[in-house]
Amino acid sequence: MHAEVEGKCKLAKKAAPLLAALTAAAKNEVLEAIAGALENSVQPIIEANRIDLENLQKKDPYTTAFHDRLLLNRERIEAMAAGLREIALLDDPVGVVAGMWKRPNGLQIGLVSVPIGVVGIIYEARPNVTVDAAGLALKAGNAVVLRGSSEAINSNRELVRLINEAVSTTNLPAGTVSLITDTSREAAADLMKADRYLDLLIPRGGPGLIRSVLDNSTVPVIQTGAGNCHIFVDREADLEMAKGIAVNAKVQRPGVCNAMETLLVHEGIADRFLPVTLEALKEQGVQVRGCEKTARYSPDVLPAEESDWETEYLDLILAVKVVVSIDEAIDHINRYNTGHSEAIITNDYFNSRLFLERVDAAAVYVNASTRFTDGSEFGLGAEMGISTQKLHARGPMGLEALTSKKYIIYGSGQIRN
Amino acid sequence: MHAEVEGKCKLAKKAAPLLAALTAAAKNEVLEAIAGALENSVQPIIEANRIDLENLQKKDPYTTAFHDRLLLNRERIEAMAAGLREIALLDDPVGVVAGMWKRPNGLQIGLVSVPIGVVGIIYEARPNVTVDAAGLALKAGNAVVLRGSSEAINSNRELVRLINEAVSTTNLPAGTVSLITDTSREAAADLMKADRYLDLLIPRGGPGLIRSVLDNSTVPVIQTGAGNCHIFVDREADLEMAKGIAVNAKVQRPGVCNAMETLLVHEGIADRFLPVTLEALKEQGVQVRGCEKTARYSPDVLPAEESDWETEYLDLILAVKVVVSIDEAIDHINRYNTGHSEAIITNDYFNSRLFLERVDAAAVYVNASTRFTDGSEFGLGAEMGISTQKLHARGPMGLEALTSKKYIIYGSGQIRN
Repeated sequence: MHAEVEGKCKLAKKAAPLLAALTAAAKNEVLEAIAGALENSVQPIIEANRIDLENLQKKDPYTTAFHDRLLLNRERIEAMAAGLREIALLDDPVGVVAGMWKRPNGLQIGLVSVPIGVVGIIYEARPNVTVDAAGLALKAGNAVVLRGSSEAINSNRELVRLINEAVSTTNLPAGTVSLITDTSREAAADLMKADRYLDLLIPRGGPGLIRSVLDNSTVPVIQTGAGNCHIFVDREADLEMAKGIAVNAKVQRPGVCNAMETLLVHEGIADRFLPVTLEALKEQGVQVRGCEKTARYSPDVLPAEESDWETEYLDLILAVKVVVSIDEAIDHINRYNTGHSEAIITNDYFNSRLFLERVDAAAVYVNASTRFTDGSEFGLGAEMGISTQKLHARGPMGLEALTSKKYIIYGSGQIRN
Repeated sequence: MHAEVEGKCKLAKKAAPLLAALTAAAKNEVLEAIAGALENSVQPIIEANRIDLENLQKKDPYTTAFHDRLLLNRERIEAMAAGLREIALLDDPVGVVAGMWKRPNGLQIGLVSVPIGVVGIIYEARPNVTVDAAGLALKAGNAVVLRGSSEAINSNRELVRLINEAVSTTNLPAGTVSLITDTSREAAADLMKADRYLDLLIPRGGPGLIRSVLDNSTVPVIQTGAGNCHIFVDREADLEMAKGIAVNAKVQRPGVCNAMETLLVHEGIADRFLPVTLEALKEQGVQVRGCEKTARYSPDVLPAEESDWETEYLDLILAVKVVVSIDEAIDHINRYNTGHSEAIITNDYFNSRLFLERVDAAAVYVNASTRFTDGSEFGLGAEMGISTQKLHARGPMGLEALTSKKYIIYGSGQIRN
C-alpha cells in the first residue's frame, strides 16, 4: 500500500478510540477552534486557492462552472465557519442509548450509539467539502481521512493545515483529520482497499467517481447523490397544482439531485394536462424529450430514446411519457429510478397509498415537489449527502448516519451453560 | 452476466415491490406453508441429501465434521420447520414508523421501515441455512437469491423446490425465493457484481468466503462471523470469577465465533491468577500459547508467535499474554480483534467504564463470558448471523437488520422557493 495512505490511515485508526471517548463539549470546542482559525486566515486561504484557480485556467476544457466550484472568497470562507458552528449546535449523536434491558440470567444489556470509527471521503473539486465533511464526521466522534481532487490540492492543504492547528491546540490526537496529498489514481485506489483501517468510505462527486468507488472499494461505501427523479400525474389530480409542481421540480434549480428528470402522465388526463404544461415548461426554457403520445401535444417535443429514461440531465431538459395506468408508472419508476425522490400528484386516496408503498426510493411524495429532499428541508440539520442505497442510511444523511451501535453488557460473573 | 444469475436476479427484483406490500398475515401464511411442506416431505429431502452425502464421501479430504454439517435427518428437518414457525411469531419489522413530523410549510414527513428489497446469500455447506435465511428474509418482506455450495446442491434444490411450492400455493410472486443452481465460481462472481438487482449480499461461511465476497462484491455486503475474542483480567478482579469465565468462554463450545481466543492478564495479578487458571485450562484439554511471562507459570505453555494474536482458533487452543496495564490490553484488543465480542473482568469502576468506551467491538462485556453474543441470548429472537462491521447492523442481526427506511411525505401542493 502507498506509504502516505497507509501512514495516515494507521494514524487515524489510532486516533479513533480517543475521539470516541470525547465529550460533546470537547468536540464543540474543536469545531469552534477550526471556525476561528478559518476566519483568522482568510488571506492565506484565498492565496492558496488562487494557485488552484491559476492552474485550472491552464486546463482544457476550462469552464466557468469549474471555476465557480473551486473558488473560495471571504464570503464562502465565512460560510464554512458558520457551518461548523451550526454543527456544534446539533445534539451529540454519540452515547445515545437506544435501549437497555435485563435478561433472565441477570445480564444487563444496552445498545448505545458510537462513532463509526475512521471515515474516508473521496470528493471532487469543491474545497468547502473539506471543512463541511470533516466537521460533521468529527462531531460524530470519527477520525477522518480526506482525499480531494488535484484541482483543489493547494486550497485543501491550507484548509487541513488550519484544521490541524485547531486539532492540536485543543489537544486532540494527531490523525484526527488527515489529507491524502498524493492526488494520483493509485493513492485513491489504495484508499479504497484500506479496509483494515477504514470503517466507511463516502464518495462525493459525479457518477464516474461513485461508480469507480463502488467497483473498487473493499471498504463499506455509502452511495450518494444520483437522482433520476420522477413525477407522476395521476388520472384524478389537481391539474393546476400538478403543473406548478412539475415546473418547480424541473426549473427551480435544475442542477441538483432532487430535481425532476422524467414526468409521467396518465393518458386519461393527458389531453387536459399536457398542452398547458408543455407550454409552461417551454416558457421556462425547458427542452422536452417525449414518447410518441407526448409529441402529439406540442411540435417542440423531441423524440425520447431509451437512454432518456435513464438520464439524470441536471439541466433544463425533461423526459415526458404518457402511461396507461398507475401500475405502468410505478413499474417505469422502479425500473429507471436511482432510489432518490419520487412523487405522485393525485386526488385518489388508494392510489396515494399504492404509490407510497410500491415505489422504491429514499423519499416518496404525494402532492409535493421532489425538491424538498434535503437535510434542512426535512428538519434534520446539516447533511453529509443524500444516500441512495438501502444499507445503513437512506435519504439525507445527518450525524446519526455517521454513527454505529455497540452492545454494552454488565454482568456479575455469568457464564454460558 | 451469467444467464441463470441474471434471470433469477431480475425475477427477484420484480417480485420485491409486491413482497414489500404484503401484510404480516400473508408473510406468516407462507412461512407456515413452507414449514408444513418440509414436514410432509421428510423422505424426499433425506433422499436428496443422501446423494450429497454420497458425493461427499468421494471427496478428498473427507471429514466427519463436513459430513455432520451436511447431514439432514428427520430431527433436523423438523427443527427447520419449527424455526420457521418461530420466525412467524416475531413482530413484522416492516411498516414501523420511527417518527412523523410536520414542517413549517405543512409537509408531513414520516420515516417508516421497509424491506431491503432483494437479499443475496452466499453460504457454505449447511443446508439448513437455505431455510433459515430464506425464512428471515421473507418475514422482512424481501426477495431472496440463494447461492449454496456444490456439496449441498441436491439438498438445496429439494428444499427450494418445496419452498417454491408453498410460495405458489400462497400466491406470492415467482422470484420470491430463488436458488442459483450453477455452483461454479463464475456464477458466484456474477452474483457479487449484480448491484443492479441486489440490495444486499450476506456471506455466511469461513474467512475465505467472506474475504472473497468483500474483495469482489459491488453489492453492499454485511460481514458476519469472524470472532477473535479477548478476555482481559484486570489487576483488581474476582479471580475465581475470572477463572470460571475464562474456562467457560474457551471450552464450553470452542468452535463458535463468540468463544475466547486470547486471554490478557494484568501483570499485577498474574502470579495469583495464571497458575490456577492454566491448570484448569489444561484439565479441559486446552493447549496454551503464551508470551514469555506466561511461560513462567507452566511448563506446558508453547511460545506464542505474532500470528497467534491474529488467529481465530475455533479449537481448544488459547493465546495468553501478560500486559502491564489496561491501556496495553485495550490497544492489543483494538489492534487484533475482529470487532466481535470482548470482555473485561474487573472490580474497578473506572476501568469498567474505560473498557466499555474504548474497546471497538459489537459487544463489550464487564464480568461476563463473551459466549452470550447471540440473538436469542440477547433476547432479540432468531438471527441471520453476527455482524462484525459497523455499517447498518452490528452484532446479532435480527429482522430489523433486513429492513431499510423510507421517507414518506404527504403534501398539499408544496413547491420549493
